[in-house]
Amino acid sequence: MTQTALSLSIELIKEPSITPNDCACQDILIKELAPFGFECELMPFGDESLDYHAPNGKNAQIKNLWAIKKGADSSAPVLCFAGHTDVVPTGDEAAWTYPPFSATVADGFLWGRGAADMKTGVAAFTVAAQNFINKHPNHKGSIALLITADEEGVAINGTKKVVDALKARGEKIDYCLVGEPSSTATLGDVIKNGRRGSLNARLTVTGKQGHIAYPHLAVNPIHALAPALNELIATTWDNGNDYFDATSLQVSNINSGTGATNVIAQTAEVLFNFRFCTENTAETLKAKTHAIFDKHFAASDARYEIEWNLSGEPFLTEKGAFVDACTAAIKAVTGTDSKLSTSGGTSDGRFIAPVMNAQVVELGVLNATIHQIDERVAVADVENLAKIYERILEEMVL
Amino acid sequence: MTQTALSLSIELIKEPSITPNDCACQDILIKELAPFGFECELMPFGDESLDYHAPNGKNAQIKNLWAIKKGADSSAPVLCFAGHTDVVPTGDEAAWTYPPFSATVADGFLWGRGAADMKTGVAAFTVAAQNFINKHPNHKGSIALLITADEEGVAINGTKKVVDALKARGEKIDYCLVGEPSSTATLGDVIKNGRRGSLNARLTVTGKQGHIAYPHLAVNPIHALAPALNELIATTWDNGNDYFDATSLQVSNINSGTGATNVIAQTAEVLFNFRFCTENTAETLKAKTHAIFDKHFAASDARYEIEWNLSGEPFLTEKGAFVDACTAAIKAVTGTDSKLSTSGGTSDGRFIAPVMNAQVVELGVLNATIHQIDERVAVADVENLAKIYERILEEMVL
Ligand SMILES: [Zn+2]
Ligand SMILES: [Zn+2]
Repeated sequence: MTQTALSLSIELIKEPSITPNDCACQDILIKELAPFGFECELMPFGDESLDYHAPNGKNAQIKNLWAIKKGADSSAPVLCFAGHTDVVPTGDEAAWTYPPFSATVADGFLWGRGAADMKTGVAAFTVAAQNFINKHPNHKGSIALLITADEEGVAINGTKKVVDALKARGEKIDYCLVGEPSSTATLGDVIKNGRRGSLNARLTVTGKQGHIAYPHLAVNPIHALAPALNELIATTWDNGNDYFDATSLQVSNINSGTGATNVIAQTAEVLFNFRFCTENTAETLKAKTHAIFDKHFAASDARYEIEWNLSGEPFLTEKGAFVDACTAAIKAVTGTDSKLSTSGGTSDGRFIAPVMNAQVVELGVLNATIHQIDERVAVADVENLAKIYERILEEMVL
Repeated sequence: MTQTALSLSIELIKEPSITPNDCACQDILIKELAPFGFECELMPFGDESLDYHAPNGKNAQIKNLWAIKKGADSSAPVLCFAGHTDVVPTGDEAAWTYPPFSATVADGFLWGRGAADMKTGVAAFTVAAQNFINKHPNHKGSIALLITADEEGVAINGTKKVVDALKARGEKIDYCLVGEPSSTATLGDVIKNGRRGSLNARLTVTGKQGHIAYPHLAVNPIHALAPALNELIATTWDNGNDYFDATSLQVSNINSGTGATNVIAQTAEVLFNFRFCTENTAETLKAKTHAIFDKHFAASDARYEIEWNLSGEPFLTEKGAFVDACTAAIKAVTGTDSKLSTSGGTSDGRFIAPVMNAQVVELGVLNATIHQIDERVAVADVENLAKIYERILEEMVL
């Protein structure tokens, strides 16, 4: 029996695939895709002996799926749908109107953890591909799916490793459609055609502990830090550009002190994060930050250290055939004029765009309820999303 | 049998009077003082039903002693010795060379908790008063002792309450000799003729929590704080004066953040402390601090609050008859030229000077080992300190 986007969504939501557990989601997808000519390959990465939730579990094994339906013309483009089968935890299950893995349809909505983020996206694309292949068995371009079970977790052995392995063996991805929930008020009102980069810093200032009545015998790390931190926060990093807001720095944590009111602390620690646009790179931001701290600490008895952690460089897909295909498909199916946006958090697009030099666009259902109690999506939007995806396939790989 | 300053010191140190427990110290002093004509009055303050070490124990009852030997001339000055019988905890007793309450004499030192801070001071003054009265039974001025058992603790029901009660009933103190360990390298090398004030502040900045990728929806309290904190730390409050170092501000603690790297915190908390000289008052410092914060927060979506806690206003005894008597007595007994100082932490002098309008001087043994393992004092210094105190009595109340 042929599935609808809704019925396949329900089957997937019934799997309690809390990150990074895929449960049977990828097996369900293989069962759907293989009969349509997809070559399906499980690509697990990581150490099978580790427990993901243990303190040393970051390198635990993760299930990933790469499926490709080759087109008639091997030089024609490859359009890859990217998504994840893992979901965030449910929170208090008793607080849900319907049990989070019951996939209940009620009041015009499909309710459940993963209903918006992003099992309906995965189901809609799978059904869209089936329908497209049924109608156009001799399509020229290729259709692929890159599915991970660790997008909501540490994301070490998920999309990043798959992309690197595909690249190493010469696979290509020309267009990447990330099925994350991009819409805000109505289906398709927002397409994300890029994402800001994210760079984390852990700053440690080391002074010398002492009694507050004898500051000349101590080196107060908070006092050493204050002017540099003030300049860091006041700095304009860039003014953004046509596609991106300006780069933003936010300090998330600052901690120093023993708790006692009469002791000057030994160290101060500050965590801060850059969300940055294509006017900067991780390297330019690091260099500017170090210039500020080097200047302020040159004459200081305190010293500073910064531990950097790059979460992802920014990526951007400029207006062109792929973006046009997305906006046209949305307009045709829903009548909505969609808006391009590069705001918000990171997504697995950050791993695909730079390695594959692919055009990456994110397009999916409404994100209003993601990660919340009573996550849900309008039933009509699920079927419409499948239609939108099918039209994009017709435009890009027919 | 008459005590020496050493033998009385030993008797007092053998009482394990960890703050605020006086054990039998004040009873021992009464036994010494009463036969010499001292009117001895126990002046307990606080709630007898409370346990000092319980969370609500700050108002627990404290033992205090007021003893006065009236002089022949009731209009002649009153010289009061101020001190405490409580000691700080021992730390690891096994780490001591001699048990901390054994009051062992060895290698020319008297070893034990309280040997320097400040049972030898209390004993030396008691013996000095006895010797003085023996030699000069018709002395004109009056000799008093104000002894508390809660100088090392919260100091709520100790010297402060006694002074207020004495003041209320019309007692006067003209000169106050605080027997705290003031010496640094040799006995009497430093006399403290004043102390800086101490003012504590707990600053809370309240913003609005949010996700770090959407800073426009949040109000980052660390960002709101940074410019004001930077100005606060960079401010010169005064340049000190002939007696005092400049006022110093030190930030002891700063804390903000949830621990997560992707969350903007709701609040930031900063603890800071002024050690201030007589060029400022608690009120001028508060006003200047609020001016800085009001300016920076005028256009901010965050707000700030400061909870102030005045530990003590500064006090100063300028050069004159009392200070001269102290330096002359030291020179005569030890040959040392003493130096005036107003540096260091606070002492109970802060409670006596302003209320009694008394001249307050701190003079005692070496402070090198106070509050440490193996606290000790040279035996010779104990007897010399008694001689110094006796000479001061001869100068001020004969
Ligand atoms: Zn997602
Ligand atoms: Zn003391």
